[in-house]
Amino acid sequence: MGEPVAFRCVSCGREYEPWSLDYTCPRCGPRAGTLEVLYDYRILGRRLTPTSFAETRRSSLWRYEELLPVGVEHAVPLRAGWTPVYSCPTLARELGLSGLWIKDDALNPTASYKDRATAVAVAAARKLGRGAMAAASTGNAATSLAGFCASAGIPCHIFVPRTAPKPKVAQLIAFGALVFAVDGTYDQAFDLCSQASAHFGWYDRSAAVNPMNVEGKKTGALELWEQLEGELPQYVLVPVGDGSVISGIAKGFSELVKVGLAEASPKVYGVQAAGAAAIAHAFRRFRRGEAILPADEPADTVADSIKVGRPRDVVKAVRYVAESGGGFVTVTDEEIVAAGQDLPRRVGVFAEPAAAAAYAGLLALLRDGTIPEGATAAVFITGSGLKDPEGVLRGLPDPTVIPPELSAVERVLSQ
Amino acid sequence: MGEPVAFRCVSCGREYEPWSLDYTCPRCGPRAGTLEVLYDYRILGRRLTPTSFAETRRSSLWRYEELLPVGVEHAVPLRAGWTPVYSCPTLARELGLSGLWIKDDALNPTASYKDRATAVAVAAARKLGRGAMAAASTGNAATSLAGFCASAGIPCHIFVPRTAPKPKVAQLIAFGALVFAVDGTYDQAFDLCSQASAHFGWYDRSAAVNPMNVEGKKTGALELWEQLEGELPQYVLVPVGDGSVISGIAKGFSELVKVGLAEASPKVYGVQAAGAAAIAHAFRRFRRGEAILPADEPADTVADSIKVGRPRDVVKAVRYVAESGGGFVTVTDEEIVAAGQDLPRRVGVFAEPAAAAAYAGLLALLRDGTIPEGATAAVFITGSGLKDPEGVLRGLPDPTVIPPELSAVERVLSQ
Repeated sequence: MGEPVAFRCVSCGREYEPWSLDYTCPRCGPRAGTLEVLYDYRILGRRLTPTSFAETRRSSLWRYEELLPVGVEHAVPLRAGWTPVYSCPTLARELGLSGLWIKDDALNPTASYKDRATAVAVAAARKLGRGAMAAASTGNAATSLAGFCASAGIPCHIFVPRTAPKPKVAQLIAFGALVFAVDGTYDQAFDLCSQASAHFGWYDRSAAVNPMNVEGKKTGALELWEQLEGELPQYVLVPVGDGSVISGIAKGFSELVKVGLAEASPKVYGVQAAGAAAIAHAFRRFRRGEAILPADEPADTVADSIKVGRPRDVVKAVRYVAESGGGFVTVTDEEIVAAGQDLPRRVGVFAEPAAAAAYAGLLALLRDGTIPEGATAAVFITGSGLKDPEGVLRGLPDPTVIPPELSAVERVLSQ
Repeated sequence: MGEPVAFRCVSCGREYEPWSLDYTCPRCGPRAGTLEVLYDYRILGRRLTPTSFAETRRSSLWRYEELLPVGVEHAVPLRAGWTPVYSCPTLARELGLSGLWIKDDALNPTASYKDRATAVAVAAARKLGRGAMAAASTGNAATSLAGFCASAGIPCHIFVPRTAPKPKVAQLIAFGALVFAVDGTYDQAFDLCSQASAHFGWYDRSAAVNPMNVEGKKTGALELWEQLEGELPQYVLVPVGDGSVISGIAKGFSELVKVGLAEASPKVYGVQAAGAAAIAHAFRRFRRGEAILPADEPADTVADSIKVGRPRDVVKAVRYVAESGGGFVTVTDEEIVAAGQDLPRRVGVFAEPAAAAAYAGLLALLRDGTIPEGATAAVFITGSGLKDPEGVLRGLPDPTVIPPELSAVERVLSQ
């Protein structure tokens, strides 16, 4: 495995001994002080070849063990990663692209990209000898943690606001998590989770505060590189809520360059809903020369999984995206719903609205010329449409009712 | 690829030139006369070694191209197969087994085992130059066909009874299928689909009538063998509705024996809901020396995907299961629901009720001593719980509501 050489604060740059602290830089605090896991890229660059990962024969993100902070011996049975990437030549042609790929991360054990983070975080808990885990979330991250803890056979504590949707909470309970419905806001649930984790010695997987999350999430970029045999696309589109997924993906590309396996990172574009665009706004301020500060805004969108008003990984997201030469784009709810209905019809991929937003972002960037004709692009589908079928299916037409006669079929076909 | 040497009627044994007919034996009719695809197992046995499949480096069922009737050059982008298998040592110990594996086929593109059949059937349509497909179904098979046709860019026609649940139909429409809501019974929709397919030249993927389905479905058995490095379990549990999935799985094991890669097939056990047990009853009659005849019975169970009263693959299912030395078992709806809530909690796998039935069947066979202590077993999870979350989650307790205070967390934990 990768043997980290330091955990570094993304804001003040201070370096800590690996594993000497679990979460964030004490100086910069839990929102600005998220940690980066650093490796000796020179040594890794000498050791790794384009076939190193295939030689492991692992059909999971553990094929990238050499670039991960935890070894496969700590992994739980559930298989995260090594999801398919689909080449879409027909759709590419229609959009004026010379190549388009869809990376379908709905095919993870709990049907979202979050399983990548959880796989590494739960393995870290086992490495560190922590016998229990926790997280504050009602969304894909909580489901993922609950599923992986069940697979690991370790207790899982989830903190949600009391108003969390019942079916989501029920799935957590089905996975055997102990769910605390906090009579307060999401932020109160988040803070109580941190406090309880510290008090009881649980390992906290909550978004951004745990540096293992980004380590797991970077593997999507490594896979894209490997599955496209080193021919990375010029543009990569990622839906953005808390900012952790895009931070991970951008870090993955950047590390491929650092170890000499790729020449350059794709331009990574974050896609946010117009009604929940705190990181896109922070990025705009950063472009104007302002400091990157945690931003709080109201959040409203159909795309549940990226409806985040108080993003936790804003510093990494803004910095890494800028380093890749990419940027941010916002899309309306109408564009998200249309994209979510276009994708299954055109490529057979049923994505949740948040994931479809990434495809909507591609269309927007093509329209405004940011992505030029003839370019190549990949879109990360970060969650399954089965997580929110009503959100995807709204407004679709009803089927045609016919009597059980061949002539009726003929009539419909000739219309 | 495997080059079939014959298509043989499972009832009268008559052999037809491969590809000389699409569906069933004209003599024995569409229910008794389903076809078996035969290969030259002697030649394959000389050619295949335990590493032949891994050498393809394909993370899909196309790694078994040598045992399939169609070549990978006809495959669509969507990736079916090569789903994970999870070893469950803790649960095995608790159940008195010396080994237990869960094969999670919910991680297929449209989240069910049916994608294996569809992948091969759609490839066959392309090989045969059929420009459109059809099926009668409201369930996983229809969703699967609609998704794969979208991926292939070919028209898809689905026939459903008018009473089909709206959300399922909406997903078909989202995948771009032309859905005919037939004002009649499911059987009328099935017959109209056959008739229209013949008339318009569509390739019909409806359950059982198309011999490609079983070819695709056998790959789950091949994978289990490969993933367990040739150490097959003694017992394999499969949920049974129409009978095609279990026919495919049993054929896969039998072919491994025929080509010399396995010494013996596991005993394959079909699990049916007590309220929808037509094949289990046909098996019982067969055991008493009666002929295997298509059977029609009323069907009622919470396990939607195996609620089949007029199973289409009864002859293959009964014969192949008998040849494996296995049998059938029925489980009540209460057992199915309990199994569906036990699985996620114990192994982190969220299965639809029909799939959980296979696990319920394992428990039943352990209880009645059919599966002895110390045995090894594998359970096929054939569909995701996200397909029917309400069916899985019914009756789970509500979460504990607490004020946002650490002392409240402590109180809950000490209860």
